[in-house]
Amino acid sequence: MRVLVLGGDGFCGWPTSLYLSDSGHDVTILDNLSRRKIDIELEVESLTPIQSIGRRLRAWKEVSGREIGFVGLDIATEYDRLVDVLRDQRPDAIVHFAEQRAAPYSMRTSATKRYTVDNNIRATHNLLAALVETGLDAALAHLGTMGVYGYGWSGSAPIPEGYLTVKLTTPDGELEREILHPANPGSVYHMTKTLDQLLFSFYAKNDGLRITDLHQGIVWGTQTDQTARDVALINRFDYDGDYGTVLNRFLMQAAIGHPLTVHGTGGQTRAFIHIRDTVRCIELALENPPQAGDRPRVLNQVTETHQVGGLAKMVADIMGADIAYLPNPRREADENDLIVTNDQFLALGLEPTKLSDGLLEEGREIAQRYRDRVDPSKIIARSVWRKGMETAEDLLTDLPPEG
Amino acid sequence: MRVLVLGGDGFCGWPTSLYLSDSGHDVTILDNLSRRKIDIELEVESLTPIQSIGRRLRAWKEVSGREIGFVGLDIATEYDRLVDVLRDQRPDAIVHFAEQRAAPYSMRTSATKRYTVDNNIRATHNLLAALVETGLDAALAHLGTMGVYGYGWSGSAPIPEGYLTVKLTTPDGELEREILHPANPGSVYHMTKTLDQLLFSFYAKNDGLRITDLHQGIVWGTQTDQTARDVALINRFDYDGDYGTVLNRFLMQAAIGHPLTVHGTGGQTRAFIHIRDTVRCIELALENPPQAGDRPRVLNQVTETHQVGGLAKMVADIMGADIAYLPNPRREADENDLIVTNDQFLALGLEPTKLSDGLLEEGREIAQRYRDRVDPSKIIARSVWRKGMETAEDLLTDLPPEG
Repeated sequence: MRVLVLGGDGFCGWPTSLYLSDSGHDVTILDNLSRRKIDIELEVESLTPIQSIGRRLRAWKEVSGREIGFVGLDIATEYDRLVDVLRDQRPDAIVHFAEQRAAPYSMRTSATKRYTVDNNIRATHNLLAALVETGLDAALAHLGTMGVYGYGWSGSAPIPEGYLTVKLTTPDGELEREILHPANPGSVYHMTKTLDQLLFSFYAKNDGLRITDLHQGIVWGTQTDQTARDVALINRFDYDGDYGTVLNRFLMQAAIGHPLTVHGTGGQTRAFIHIRDTVRCIELALENPPQAGDRPRVLNQVTETHQVGGLAKMVADIMGADIAYLPNPRREADENDLIVTNDQFLALGLEPTKLSDGLLEEGREIAQRYRDRVDPSKIIARSVWRKGMETAEDLLTDLPPEG
Repeated sequence: MRVLVLGGDGFCGWPTSLYLSDSGHDVTILDNLSRRKIDIELEVESLTPIQSIGRRLRAWKEVSGREIGFVGLDIATEYDRLVDVLRDQRPDAIVHFAEQRAAPYSMRTSATKRYTVDNNIRATHNLLAALVETGLDAALAHLGTMGVYGYGWSGSAPIPEGYLTVKLTTPDGELEREILHPANPGSVYHMTKTLDQLLFSFYAKNDGLRITDLHQGIVWGTQTDQTARDVALINRFDYDGDYGTVLNRFLMQAAIGHPLTVHGTGGQTRAFIHIRDTVRCIELALENPPQAGDRPRVLNQVTETHQVGGLAKMVADIMGADIAYLPNPRREADENDLIVTNDQFLALGLEPTKLSDGLLEEGREIAQRYRDRVDPSKIIARSVWRKGMETAEDLLTDLPPEG
C-alpha cells in the first residue's frame, strides 16, 4: 500500500512509519514538526536523544534499504498544499496522528486550549474536505482516545467499541437504537477527539468516506523492533508533566530517585497498550477498512487495564521508590472500574503485549541510561485545569548521584 | 442587564438587539459584518433594502431615544480584542449568533465547508475560553438548531429538550441514563452546532459556565414591532438558494410568479418559529439562566411543525402559484413525523405566534413591495452537497410584469 502518515515524526507516528515501511508499504510522512517546537516552548526535551527527521530517515535507509518520504506540511493551515500532496501521492491509506495530544498542555492557558481546538479540528476537517475534493478513496485511520468515553459512566457494563445499544421509551413501546457512545471528555484535548467523531460520522454518511477511529489507551514503552535497530532511530520518551504518560513517568521517576507522582487517590483505572501493539494495530486497521457507506469503524486500541495506584506500587516495589499523592485536575470519581471491549482487534489477529511480559525492564533501562538528560523542574505537572486548582512544588531540585 | 449580542447585525441578531434594547437592556453589538460580505460573494442582496449598521443604529436612537453600542470585531480570529471587550463591558449576559448559518452555503465547496467549521467552532470556543480567562460570570445564550437532532430517528417519541433518557443493559441489570440527544446533522453547518454542544458540555462541567443552547426551528417572518418602526430599521429577507429559508422563499416565489421550489417529496416535517417569537425566546433564556455547575440548559425554540409540501400547497392556494419538485440534497427519509417538546419556553411564558395568526400576509406584502429587487438567477439552490447530485435549471429568467 501507498500510505501517508500525518504526524509521522511523533511518539506514535514515528514507530508506525517505520513499522509500515518494514512491512513493505510505501510510506510518506507529513509533519510540521510541531511536537518538537512545543518541546522548545516548554523548555524540555525527550529523555531519549531523538534525531532530526532528516537524520532519522537517512538512518532508516541505511539499516533497511527502504526510503520513507517526508513533506514538511501543516495540514491545519496549508490546505491547498495538502490537496496537492494527495493528488500527487494518491495514497491507498492515510494514518492521521496530526493532533496536539497532551491533556495537561491543552489545559495550561487560553492559548493552549485554543491551539488544541483550532489545530486538531482544522487538521481533521481539512483532511476530510480534501478527501472529498480530490475524490480519493483512501482508507483513513485516525488516532482517537479512550478518553472520549469517560470513566465509570456505564456501571459494570464493558465499554463497547464506539457504539452503544440503548433503549428509548416511545408512545408505541420501546425502541432499540445503536448510538455513538456519549462523550464524556475530561480535558480540552479529549474533547477535540469527541468533536472529531462527529466530523467522521458526517463525512462517512454524506460522502462515503471510509474511516476507522482508534480509541487508544495510555501508551507505554519506547522502542519497537524497528526503532531499536539504530540509536539514530530511537523513539521519543516524554517525562515532563505535560507530555509524559503515566507508566513511562513512573519508570523515569524511579530511575532518578524521584517519588512516583499519582494524581488523586490512584483509584482511577485506565487502559494501556504497548507502543509495539500500537503499530500493529494501525496496520491491522488499514488492512481491514470499512466499506463506503458504512458508519466509521471504531476499534478500542487497548490490551489491558490497571489502577494507576496499583501501577505505582508495582514500580515502587520493583525499583524502590516512594509515592507522592498530588491533586487530581480532572473532575472525575476517585475510583472507577473499567472493562474495555477489544474483540475486533483480537479477531483481526492482535497478540497483546502485556505488562507482565518483561518489557518494563526496557523502560527502566532507558530511563537509567538517559537519566542525566532529566531536568527535575519539568517533572511536576504545572497545568492548572480550573480556577482554584493547586499543583505541587518541585519534589526534587537536583539529580541525586546514581545509586 | 448589560448584554452583548455577537452577530447582532444578522437576520436574528438585529431584531434581537432592538428587542432587548426596547425592553430596557443595555445592548452592545459585536459583529464582523460577515453576512453582508457573503452577500457580496454570492452576488445577491436581501430582498428588503437593509441599511448599514451605522445608519441602523442612528435610526434606532432617533425612534427610541436609546443607544446600542457597536464593535466591529471577528470573534473567531480576534481573540485578544474579544477579551478586551469583555473586560471593558463586563456583560451580565451574552447572546451568541456569530456563526455561518446556511446549510446550502456550508456544502457549496471545500472553501465554504472549511470556512463554516473554522469560523463557527473558533467563534464558540474563543468565547468560552475568553469567559474562563476573564472570570466573568455572564449568562450565555447560543443559537443552536433543531437540525442537531435529525428527523425521524426516535420513531413516535417527541424530540426532548436536549437530553434523552435511555436504558443500558449491564451485567447488573438495566441502568437509566440521561444523555445529550445523539447528533444527526444533515449538513456541515448543522454539524458545527453538534460540535458546539460538546464544547458547551465541557466548559459547563469544567469551569461552571452558565450556558443555554437554543435549538431553533426554521424562522419565518421579517419584521418585529421594533424593526417596523422605521424603514431604516428593516430586517433582512433572504430569498436566495443558500440563505433563504423555506417559508419566506415560498412567499417571494409566489410574489414574482416563480414556482414554489420543494426539495424532495415535500414529506419532510420541520419545526417553525416566527422572528417575533425568536426575540422573545432570547430574552426569556437570558432571564432564566442555569446555575454554575449545571449542565447546559437546552430549549427547543420552536412553536409549531409543518410538512414542507403542505406549506407549499397552502401558499400556492392563497397566492396562486405552481409547485416544482427538485432533488433533495439531504440524506434523509422522504417523509418523517416530528413532534417537538417546547414545554420549558411555554412554562416561561412564551405565547406562540402561529402561522394561522395572519402574519403570512406581512410576508406577502413585503415580497410584493420589493419584488423588483429579486435576481431570478439566485432563486434556485446551486449547492451540490455530494458527488453526483443534480440541481435544477433556472425556472424563471426574467421577472414577469406585476400581475
